[in-house]
Amino acid sequence: MMIRAGIIGATGYVGSDLVRILYHHPEVELKLLTSKNHKNQSYNSVYSNFNKICEMICDEDDLDSAINQLDIIFLSLPHGVTSSILTDKILKNVKVIDLSADFRLKSVDEYVEWYNIKHSNANLLKKAVYGLSEWKREQIKNSKLVANPGCYPTCALLCLLPLIKEGILEEEHIIIDAKSGVSGAGRSLNLGTHFSESNESTKAYNVLSHRHTPEIDQELSEVNGNEISVIFTPHLIPMNRGILCTCYGILKKSYNYEDIKKIYEDNYENEFFIRLMKKNDLPETRWVKGSNYCDIGFSLDEKANRIIIVGAIDNLVKGGAGQAVQNMNLMFDLEENIGLKSIPMFPV
Amino acid sequence: MMIRAGIIGATGYVGSDLVRILYHHPEVELKLLTSKNHKNQSYNSVYSNFNKICEMICDEDDLDSAINQLDIIFLSLPHGVTSSILTDKILKNVKVIDLSADFRLKSVDEYVEWYNIKHSNANLLKKAVYGLSEWKREQIKNSKLVANPGCYPTCALLCLLPLIKEGILEEEHIIIDAKSGVSGAGRSLNLGTHFSESNESTKAYNVLSHRHTPEIDQELSEVNGNEISVIFTPHLIPMNRGILCTCYGILKKSYNYEDIKKIYEDNYENEFFIRLMKKNDLPETRWVKGSNYCDIGFSLDEKANRIIIVGAIDNLVKGGAGQAVQNMNLMFDLEENIGLKSIPMFPV
Amino acid sequence: MMIRAGIIGATGYVGSDLVRILYHHPEVELKLLTSKNHKNQSYNSVYSNFNKICEMICDEDDLDSAINQLDIIFLSLPHGVTSSILTDKILKNVKVIDLSADFRLKSVDEYVEWYNIKHSNANLLKKAVYGLSEWKREQIKNSKLVANPGCYPTCALLCLLPLIKEGILEEEHIIIDAKSGVSGAGRSLNLGTHFSESNESTKAYNVLSHRHTPEIDQELSEVNGNEISVIFTPHLIPMNRGILCTCYGILKKSYNYEDIKKIYEDNYENEFFIRLMKKNDLPETRWVKGSNYCDIGFSLDEKANRIIIVGAIDNLVKGGAGQAVQNMNLMFDLEENIGLKSIPMFPV
Amino acid sequence: MMIRAGIIGATGYVGSDLVRILYHHPEVELKLLTSKNHKNQSYNSVYSNFNKICEMICDEDDLDSAINQLDIIFLSLPHGVTSSILTDKILKNVKVIDLSADFRLKSVDEYVEWYNIKHSNANLLKKAVYGLSEWKREQIKNSKLVANPGCYPTCALLCLLPLIKEGILEEEHIIIDAKSGVSGAGRSLNLGTHFSESNESTKAYNVLSHRHTPEIDQELSEVNGNEISVIFTPHLIPMNRGILCTCYGILKKSYNYEDIKKIYEDNYENEFFIRLMKKNDLPETRWVKGSNYCDIGFSLDEKANRIIIVGAIDNLVKGGAGQAVQNMNLMFDLEENIGLKSIPMFPV
Repeated sequence: MMIRAGIIGATGYVGSDLVRILYHHPEVELKLLTSKNHKNQSYNSVYSNFNKICEMICDEDDLDSAINQLDIIFLSLPHGVTSSILTDKILKNVKVIDLSADFRLKSVDEYVEWYNIKHSNANLLKKAVYGLSEWKREQIKNSKLVANPGCYPTCALLCLLPLIKEGILEEEHIIIDAKSGVSGAGRSLNLGTHFSESNESTKAYNVLSHRHTPEIDQELSEVNGNEISVIFTPHLIPMNRGILCTCYGILKKSYNYEDIKKIYEDNYENEFFIRLMKKNDLPETRWVKGSNYCDIGFSLDEKANRIIIVGAIDNLVKGGAGQAVQNMNLMFDLEENIGLKSIPMFPV
Repeated sequence: MMIRAGIIGATGYVGSDLVRILYHHPEVELKLLTSKNHKNQSYNSVYSNFNKICEMICDEDDLDSAINQLDIIFLSLPHGVTSSILTDKILKNVKVIDLSADFRLKSVDEYVEWYNIKHSNANLLKKAVYGLSEWKREQIKNSKLVANPGCYPTCALLCLLPLIKEGILEEEHIIIDAKSGVSGAGRSLNLGTHFSESNESTKAYNVLSHRHTPEIDQELSEVNGNEISVIFTPHLIPMNRGILCTCYGILKKSYNYEDIKKIYEDNYENEFFIRLMKKNDLPETRWVKGSNYCDIGFSLDEKANRIIIVGAIDNLVKGGAGQAVQNMNLMFDLEENIGLKSIPMFPV
Repeated sequence: MMIRAGIIGATGYVGSDLVRILYHHPEVELKLLTSKNHKNQSYNSVYSNFNKICEMICDEDDLDSAINQLDIIFLSLPHGVTSSILTDKILKNVKVIDLSADFRLKSVDEYVEWYNIKHSNANLLKKAVYGLSEWKREQIKNSKLVANPGCYPTCALLCLLPLIKEGILEEEHIIIDAKSGVSGAGRSLNLGTHFSESNESTKAYNVLSHRHTPEIDQELSEVNGNEISVIFTPHLIPMNRGILCTCYGILKKSYNYEDIKKIYEDNYENEFFIRLMKKNDLPETRWVKGSNYCDIGFSLDEKANRIIIVGAIDNLVKGGAGQAVQNMNLMFDLEENIGLKSIPMFPV
Repeated sequence: MMIRAGIIGATGYVGSDLVRILYHHPEVELKLLTSKNHKNQSYNSVYSNFNKICEMICDEDDLDSAINQLDIIFLSLPHGVTSSILTDKILKNVKVIDLSADFRLKSVDEYVEWYNIKHSNANLLKKAVYGLSEWKREQIKNSKLVANPGCYPTCALLCLLPLIKEGILEEEHIIIDAKSGVSGAGRSLNLGTHFSESNESTKAYNVLSHRHTPEIDQELSEVNGNEISVIFTPHLIPMNRGILCTCYGILKKSYNYEDIKKIYEDNYENEFFIRLMKKNDLPETRWVKGSNYCDIGFSLDEKANRIIIVGAIDNLVKGGAGQAVQNMNLMFDLEENIGLKSIPMFPV
């Protein structure tokens, strides 16, 4: 029997990639697309790439009627909205993957501090699993509520967690300099993402204050045992898709290339979606576009005990819709990569 | 004595290029910048490229107080607004260069048909000169009200007028396929000019209905004598600046390369801002960016009596602010190229 | 039993998209990739998007050994090379889809005139079918040698053929103003496709002399009955993928929107890969990227009997690798869209 | 009397910006352009933006005949070439600004280590001044040989030197994550700068091995007194112009915003070409394009004693041709900003 899926908030960029991926997923039947701004419009009138493919009519964001006809709901709503509409009753009826930040942080206080909104459903936090598929596989399988990670944290955590788990990095000296394509800012209009303002320019933004920071800290700290606070600096790059994370660490003692390589292989050798680069190769965003892969490579300064880890993902796929489907696969006990095997497209 | 200039509506892209050009114009003192949306803000807070350069405070759009302290006003306002605020009294006190479409069309009916707004000041139309500098030089010199041409018409007319004047093109078969960078759409937010929507894509828009069409028709017809209706198709190109016009014509009889070349040279040899390409070379937008040049070249199919004329301009300079300053120079009897000699920047 | 496929010249952009598409084709086993420049290198070392996906070693371009182990060969070699190596013997053993221009033109003289090389295998021309799938379906099914169309002709012909077949356009007045992304120029280094030279600029190139012209003329003429010579002007657009064709025609008599719409529907209603736009909508390249679709729309000036038809394709898919696979499907009597159903990716 | 200037190696991107800037410099007469690859071609045939502007013929790279007719020579040659042709005799006759790396490093050993070529003229190193205008002004004024800084070091050093001089940063923890437009890679063809390979993608390159590293170390160490080794990671960004440096430092003790601001103001308040951002504002490359400005801003984590300094320059102007002209102005005792006042162009 097919998994009956619905997407609440289907007309953002992540929602649109969810439709694209789920539409051809062999185990999924897409039953419901909702949209606040495009209610009663056909999906292809909102995204013409779906002409003759998906011409479903966008519904209202009505969860109550949805839960009876669905097995899983993807929530792709603004921060604060998800937590205000999600209930125990819903979770009793359907599995939920939330793509907002509402259930990522375990601490309500941190949520309030960083998002500056009250959390309307703090009691559900305990039920939520942070959906970094490769690191929370078992919990995800048994969860009804998965908090899909942010795009930046996905890339940064996949790069750092092996070394952090091993405890070989000085915890107080971790810097993540991240670069993202403009689609990460979403489809809402904004002067900063107006073509002539963002094209042909680069900038850092939300320096020392980006909301993905506590998410990264939380997950690194959990795996490491010590409290970790990273420096995280996102940058906007004039391209549509892609995130590149350049992570800087100091090694507690001397390691050679093979030592580090082994740590990554021990963690990722059998991971379908993680591709470790060959020696001297580093990831570039062009090689992962349109796919759920995360490419990881590193460079070592053995004399200075410095390491630079570079990761690349497609921000809308592994950093959003793709990882959500990967999590769905886990929750329904399917092959983890089903529906997600598309080869990165190049050039694109 | 310096020319005291004011820009009404200084915070659009054309307004901003006006500030950039006038700021270093040796005969101009920039006295007034107004902005509806950025009233009381410093100009550099709106455009940070002007930090430490132009930190003037944006005023209200108050023409009345402006006219006493100024010699010339550049009006860079939305269509319909200019005509509603311009008066004979203003024109008695200052010269005006209007960058909107309000005074470009001689026929009020055409204006109403294409712009779908009533014209509030039809009586002033007779006083207005269509400011295509190279073709209306004498009238501009003697005018108090110049209607600065649209960006597309500037490029298309400079390409076509020599042949149209000569009467060698079949009047009913003129096609202009134009390509413009996104800055031509202005700074107002719009889904179509959102980065991820316009980057990496091309489209035709306003096909058979773009408002620059009657402007082109009017000027071609005037010079030719016959009523000319062109087919004009604008396209959006994922780049910031530049317009390329590919103009298709049918020659009434056989001409060779030298014949056509001579016609262009006769018209443009002494024009500072027009650069005729060498045989086999055609314009590209990259060679004119940041400058007031219009590059023109052509290709001839002698057997078929077909000609393709290609022109390139910077849409914000020769297609906007630059030509406006060129017209100001004419109106004040200055060297036509003063303040406008900057070399196209490449690569940029 | 799986179709055993080989790609001769697999490391160009079209070759790379062939690998991408064939790799997941459910009826195909990719047995051979060859490359002159990357002989003995693994495919993923040439295109890192294939890391952990396709790590085949690139072979020499040795057709003779290939024909015994393969059912179909895709030839993606430079013009002139294909015709020099293809033999009757090869065609006896395997089916061939040639992506060069060597077998597109029926007339050897035209080939010599436009490509300026001798044709080494003119006798094979009669066996070759011009592989415009939607228009040559039956011949392709029965052919052993398909000449895959050029990228521009694919788009232009799909736009024009319905009207040309109907005979409603003035044959001597057809103009195709085409815009292509830079990937169309291939992976060979060239100053014109160096990033800083082509980024942020637009130009026409090979005006009145582009080699895709005779291909368009040949196919239009064949369907129409009259000799047709189009004006075809390609432009380079600063984007990776996509072709937009803006086609200008004059209608022999008056038609209304519904008349024209019906002609397109009669021809394309049941075509999987052709999407006719709704009234007032026109294609944009962003909506077809990564897919085998061709979007077609038109605008009508009823008073002037003018029509503008706009088409959009992904130049590497429908304009290359995708159509080649579509043709392979036809040649092997498979569902025509098998392996080709991927949804256009947006934004990308 | 005009300064007679020559550019040896005038057809690279930096050379081309030198021509652009010097051409309108009121005190300079451009007497000589040389080019190895474009010998005997007119300059505008190499760069069509100079049509009707600079149509000088490119000479051979013959320094001997040049020195008698010139007052200053700009050497824009590949690393290793400059040092092999520069002689004491030349320096007796003309002033020299070298834009290669040959005279930047004081230590011949370091030069050999990083550039992997023998230095043919080590004795001249003592005479060379590192031409970071704002920091070496007095030495530049008295020098006959200026080694113009690399593009990355210019931006990084201007950001870091005030804090390094003050000694408030932990010397062993300085990280520079830099992002550059593709023009920085020059005009030579290379797969990595082919349009479809670099467009829409981001990557780190030359990680832990970029040749600009020792230059940064040398200058920081000299001003600080301690030996400093930075981590410097350059990235390629899909845009033509611009460098953004995101510099990470650890403060030795607690400082507040005003403390740091004062340090920058003490150093830069009177510097024409340095623009300190307002609190909470950080530089973006779009605001400096086409100009010689360097914009600097910073963000402070007071609790963690962390600072992030961001700088932006136009890589070809302040990072190349502009700073070279600034140095020339100093060497000839002119106003430092003469010929360099052009306002950053936006959008471009």
